[in-house]
Amino acid sequence: ETFKHLISLKRHPDLQLLPMPSEEIKSLSLPVGWKCYRSPEGQKYYVNISTKETTWERPSRSTTRPKTSGSHQHSGNIYTRSIHAHTHCELTFLCFISLQINCVTFPVPASALEQQLLKPSEWSYCDYFWADKKDPQGATVSGFEVLLQKQLKGKQMQKEMAEFIRERIKIEEEYAKNLSKLSMFPMAAQEEGTLGEAWAQLKKSLADEAEVHLKFSSKLQSEVEKPLLTFRGDNFKKDMKKYDHHIADLRKQQVSRYAAVEKARKALADRQKDLEVKTQQLEIKLSNKTEEDIKKARRKSTQAGDDLMRCVDLYNQAQSKWFEEMVTTSLELERLEVERVETIQQLLRQYTTLRHETDMFNQSTLEPVDQLLQSVDPAKDRELWVKEHKTGDLRPVDMDI
Amino acid sequence: ETFKHLISLKRHPDLQLLPMPSEEIKSLSLPVGWKCYRSPEGQKYYVNISTKETTWERPSRSTTRPKTSGSHQHSGNIYTRSIHAHTHCELTFLCFISLQINCVTFPVPASALEQQLLKPSEWSYCDYFWADKKDPQGATVSGFEVLLQKQLKGKQMQKEMAEFIRERIKIEEEYAKNLSKLSMFPMAAQEEGTLGEAWAQLKKSLADEAEVHLKFSSKLQSEVEKPLLTFRGDNFKKDMKKYDHHIADLRKQQVSRYAAVEKARKALADRQKDLEVKTQQLEIKLSNKTEEDIKKARRKSTQAGDDLMRCVDLYNQAQSKWFEEMVTTSLELERLEVERVETIQQLLRQYTTLRHETDMFNQSTLEPVDQLLQSVDPAKDRELWVKEHKTGDLRPVDMDI
Repeated sequence: ETFKHLISLKRHPDLQLLPMPSEEIKSLSLPVGWKCYRSPEGQKYYVNISTKETTWERPSRSTTRPKTSGSHQHSGNIYTRSIHAHTHCELTFLCFISLQINCVTFPVPASALEQQLLKPSEWSYCDYFWADKKDPQGATVSGFEVLLQKQLKGKQMQKEMAEFIRERIKIEEEYAKNLSKLSMFPMAAQEEGTLGEAWAQLKKSLADEAEVHLKFSSKLQSEVEKPLLTFRGDNFKKDMKKYDHHIADLRKQQVSRYAAVEKARKALADRQKDLEVKTQQLEIKLSNKTEEDIKKARRKSTQAGDDLMRCVDLYNQAQSKWFEEMVTTSLELERLEVERVETIQQLLRQYTTLRHETDMFNQSTLEPVDQLLQSVDPAKDRELWVKEHKTGDLRPVDMDI
Repeated sequence: ETFKHLISLKRHPDLQLLPMPSEEIKSLSLPVGWKCYRSPEGQKYYVNISTKETTWERPSRSTTRPKTSGSHQHSGNIYTRSIHAHTHCELTFLCFISLQINCVTFPVPASALEQQLLKPSEWSYCDYFWADKKDPQGATVSGFEVLLQKQLKGKQMQKEMAEFIRERIKIEEEYAKNLSKLSMFPMAAQEEGTLGEAWAQLKKSLADEAEVHLKFSSKLQSEVEKPLLTFRGDNFKKDMKKYDHHIADLRKQQVSRYAAVEKARKALADRQKDLEVKTQQLEIKLSNKTEEDIKKARRKSTQAGDDLMRCVDLYNQAQSKWFEEMVTTSLELERLEVERVETIQQLLRQYTTLRHETDMFNQSTLEPVDQLLQSVDPAKDRELWVKEHKTGDLRPVDMDI
């Protein structure tokens, strides 16, 4: 029954809104169709599955009309709400108080309006992917498959970001290679004195820049690209497949059990028709023979009723299992997506941090150049050069005879 | 005479150490060999060029011994110093008070010690390149050629620096090209929500970086490379050639005038020998004939003396002209070298300034990325995505019979 999986959902820490669990109490001594439950308040109450009658008194074989008021005691719980809806339309066909789409049973709009989100104001995956949809090619896609596609796309994005960073790394490496190559070119190597020193340092600063960019690229590799690549290993896609198959299997089981229900419902209808026919025959002329037939027909009809109930039971169990897995798994996928976004945010922050560092380190490569440029001194350079190259400081004088 | 070019040097503002000029006063009435000058104090004095005698009294045809004290009045002036030196070694041969190297006349060490630098403590070109030197191949290289080579080397250094900057420009252009290309790659373009925005901005930031590096390269081109290339046009080498030829021509003239001096000195020697012979003949036996010969020989000897003096005069004029040009031009080359060093210093400073700017602008390309990374929000992204992709928020309920 629907609240069954609400119970099971209590296992999930994120969900608080659920009512206290009510548990079925097996009691075979009850008349056919009746079951006994403990209310959220712990009080026993009795439900006739087929007629949806509810009562506080233990029903005898001759069932009594329920106090509809009794049903109000359990309102605020989908199950009792649907009973409630029913008690107001006793004459409408049962199949109208809920509708099946692709073998999933949804409440009718009336009671749907009363349905509360499991995690209101959170836009949680577990609240918005219950229905199937048609993809552009007209194929049916389950809500869960939509969630899975988002996961796979996320993995793809992460992979592409890693590729992008890899390209950046290559660019940095080539830039660094060219800078250090140039810094070793011999150009103006013979410039002398303080100017020569400043020039040599300027050339050397290119090698320092190259160093900085190499460091940047290697840190990009170890602190951004690699984490982006390894963040979710190959297990990830396997896990997604597992989820996919698990949920799909549950849906299949639900479908087959739905078919069983339909079959049982038809059988019951036939049996009831047969019983009516026999009863009419009885009204026409009494005979032992007919008396016997009617007993037999009633027995078969009751049995068909029990069959249908068992099938519906099994169907609802299947649906509740699927429901449970849907909620649990979609909440897990939600967690994974939050984790992905936060991890990538962190890695991109690391990227900008490394870039900032690079600019700062680059600045520092210029300090020695600036210093030597400060102390460039033409007079000093002339002194050095003259001392090395002077030919003679003895000035000529006039010739004497 | 030496102080003549000291006079002319007074034109040069940089030179202060020179004595007041003394000017020759042409007076034809003086006996042969005598000249009249005005002393630094403006007092007239008389010098016998051939005997180096000096005196305050105007010499009559019958010359009188000079008060050597008179010479002291003019010390501190190369010219008079050389006289002074001479008055102390009347008996030594004249050729020993100065020595010729490659037809340039230098003072003997004794008086050299008294020689003061034109620009002491400045290591000025004009003080250290008077002598010639031999290059590794044993060829004679004048001091001035050494200075010229320095100039041409400087020009070459400047050209090579421009080439180096050009290479840097190319590297920056390629780096920028690669960055902007990468920033347009489609990788992870489908990332959604706030994370998608941050990622898109990160990719865009590469285009911004590319912009920064392009700006760097184009400023390098216009503010560093171009000025380095154009700083000294082709005229520069022409100018250097002009200087080279001009000074070389002056040296040539000096050489030819030196040869003329040697010739005249030999002629004088012959004449004096002839006069001696004649005089000895006279002592042996008196005769009118010999009396006449001696007069004639004395006249010819005096004439040869005058010749020699004129040649020495011309030689000294040539040397002083060369001296003058050497000082003026070397000071000009010195100025050019200071200018070159200071200009290059400025351009290299401009290089580091542009590099600093680049690092700063680079920082700014990250600001928008950092901001968007700040506002990455998994819940927001889930809301956006769920709103777009949700399949249905109606939860299933139990099937009723």
